[in-house]
Amino acid sequence: MTTLRITIERTEGAARAGVLHTPHGDIPMPVFMPVGTYGVVRTMSPDELRAVGAGIILGNTYHLLLRPGPELIARRGGLHRFMSWPGAILTDSGGFQVFSLAKFRRVGEDEVSFRSHIDGAEVVLSPERVVEVEQALGADIAMCFDECPAHEVDREYARAATERTHRWARRCREAHSRPDQALFGICQGGLFPDMRRDSARTLADLDFPGYGIGGLSVGEEKARTLDLLVDSVEGLPAEKPRYLMGVGSPEDLIEGVARGVDMFDCVLPTRIARNGALFTRRGRLNLKNAACREDDGPIEADCDCYTCRHFSLAYLHHLNRVEETLGLRLTTIHNLRFLIRLMEQVRSAILEGSFAAFRAAFLSGYRVTDQEVRHEQKARSLRSQ
Amino acid sequence: MTTLRITIERTEGAARAGVLHTPHGDIPMPVFMPVGTYGVVRTMSPDELRAVGAGIILGNTYHLLLRPGPELIARRGGLHRFMSWPGAILTDSGGFQVFSLAKFRRVGEDEVSFRSHIDGAEVVLSPERVVEVEQALGADIAMCFDECPAHEVDREYARAATERTHRWARRCREAHSRPDQALFGICQGGLFPDMRRDSARTLADLDFPGYGIGGLSVGEEKARTLDLLVDSVEGLPAEKPRYLMGVGSPEDLIEGVARGVDMFDCVLPTRIARNGALFTRRGRLNLKNAACREDDGPIEADCDCYTCRHFSLAYLHHLNRVEETLGLRLTTIHNLRFLIRLMEQVRSAILEGSFAAFRAAFLSGYRVTDQEVRHEQKARSLRSQ
Repeated sequence: MTTLRITIERTEGAARAGVLHTPHGDIPMPVFMPVGTYGVVRTMSPDELRAVGAGIILGNTYHLLLRPGPELIARRGGLHRFMSWPGAILTDSGGFQVFSLAKFRRVGEDEVSFRSHIDGAEVVLSPERVVEVEQALGADIAMCFDECPAHEVDREYARAATERTHRWARRCREAHSRPDQALFGICQGGLFPDMRRDSARTLADLDFPGYGIGGLSVGEEKARTLDLLVDSVEGLPAEKPRYLMGVGSPEDLIEGVARGVDMFDCVLPTRIARNGALFTRRGRLNLKNAACREDDGPIEADCDCYTCRHFSLAYLHHLNRVEETLGLRLTTIHNLRFLIRLMEQVRSAILEGSFAAFRAAFLSGYRVTDQEVRHEQKARSLRSQ
Repeated sequence: MTTLRITIERTEGAARAGVLHTPHGDIPMPVFMPVGTYGVVRTMSPDELRAVGAGIILGNTYHLLLRPGPELIARRGGLHRFMSWPGAILTDSGGFQVFSLAKFRRVGEDEVSFRSHIDGAEVVLSPERVVEVEQALGADIAMCFDECPAHEVDREYARAATERTHRWARRCREAHSRPDQALFGICQGGLFPDMRRDSARTLADLDFPGYGIGGLSVGEEKARTLDLLVDSVEGLPAEKPRYLMGVGSPEDLIEGVARGVDMFDCVLPTRIARNGALFTRRGRLNLKNAACREDDGPIEADCDCYTCRHFSLAYLHHLNRVEETLGLRLTTIHNLRFLIRLMEQVRSAILEGSFAAFRAAFLSGYRVTDQEVRHEQKARSLRSQ
């Protein structure tokens, strides 16, 4: 099995600072990976991804399977070359989308069949076919095909899905052969602490070069989800990278790192950016807010992104109002830079042994709801008149 | 009246190579100006506009009047600063949009009233108000308010509209006071040769620092339109810049330069780019064409734009198919670079005295309809398999 080397430089509590060594570059960890659904991080060019500090991005196997198809991408020399991205790529397995987006799904032990959400065509995925697709895409890291059950399922269903995920992990491992690609296992276990620990240990025994932690991305009860994360991490080996799948709010990233996570991905920063919601150190700011209309300042005065260095909130508000695509890009740039820079700051803090203080300071200044930031923004705008 | 200096470096027949000196930089002429409707050239950042070689862009007074309003832009320090554009700007007068987009239009001698196509609000524009709006926007070049009648109007209507345009030009001239902004007159005259000559001479007598040539942008009969252009140019002074408004196809630019035009603007390159139509030296190529699906080459092998240097037709075809906004931007970059580079090549040819040969070579290789290029493209693709 292909290995993927990581270096752990320093730890503070469970938090780790290190480097993920990939065929397309060394990636400082902890790391946030922007999501490139269709071979493109929506609105962003490869140059802009580099400029926000992205070293590794995610490709969605499910979406690329439907359009333009993995064989077409393989004939182009793989996903890196197709999209002109010189950095590293991780492809998910499509499991999450099959179990959330696809229609008329039939789950069997051997394979899952469903209809494309684009044109209704029937598609069949098995662990072997997923590996074949991911090898065709040629990412640096591929993920095993897994079943990610809905949060509300009972213990019996969760156990069946988790055990099937383990059997599929073994089949993916058997099928995988590409020497320049690392295959990660995914541990599940629903919302049951003992099952999460068991799943992590079962996967750990299979000796994958890294591990995804699935099924914890949509938690309404944050405290409980974070406890379940601890249960998963406990079962995983210290010398392998740990990737918390589908988590991307600033506060969740900080809390994930505090519990030993090295890698994150999420559509949140890019999706909310396209709705005009912006990350700031004080919480989210909504660009549609009338207080932005005549604000000549940037989103954040100390942000080093292209958007904050060149454009005022007033201009971004205007672009949002006239529905101009440049606006979608400029807000995406800011939100991605915000999360990537947050991970850079977290990494520096761990290396200096000051992560606990950084975490406390960040969380005390950060409001999770929009409403408070909106008020403050308005007050600031009124003062400046 | 503010003057705007131009330098004519060399002429070949009626064609001129020179420099337009503006408060925001020296612009080599002949020049194509990308259109930035709402304080943004759709999909493009200021850095990208610079990278395609744009030195001057157009702002639409009508659109900016409605959103976000000229007073808001003036409070931001003007349009250059609002949109973070360091180059030169020309604002049109809104006349063309008032007479094509606006609803419930009432045209009087003093003013025109109409309803906004956005929210139905009543707006009143007079020559004095247009000058006020353009001075608030603060472009390097402002255009006089004019009436651009439809092509099908009879001689009597065309004469009334043209004479009103002349009276409005005098009123704009009176109202204009901004010392860092040049006000151009616009000559009209419908599709009547004698009236076009008269209009040009009347405007020339008013001694504007430059002249727009209006009403020749939507010509179905190209030969007739080009003859009318000659009638207009003949009445204009040689020492002032001549701007053919709303014309932007490659062949029309070449033919316009051959008849003494220095400046052009048009939404054509950016609008068709967003529909997947690409300029090439052989004609337009449609990205939706199935032959692009597996074509690993760029749009044009010798093009120096960011798109052609980094991306294949196969990738652009994919972005178009999944309706990704990066695709709109990449095609816009190519089409703008194509026209701006064409003007650079035309300028070099005039300076070398080889424009006649350049023009003949370009026009003989260029097919005006899509269909032929599509066939050739397909043949090329089949050959490469």
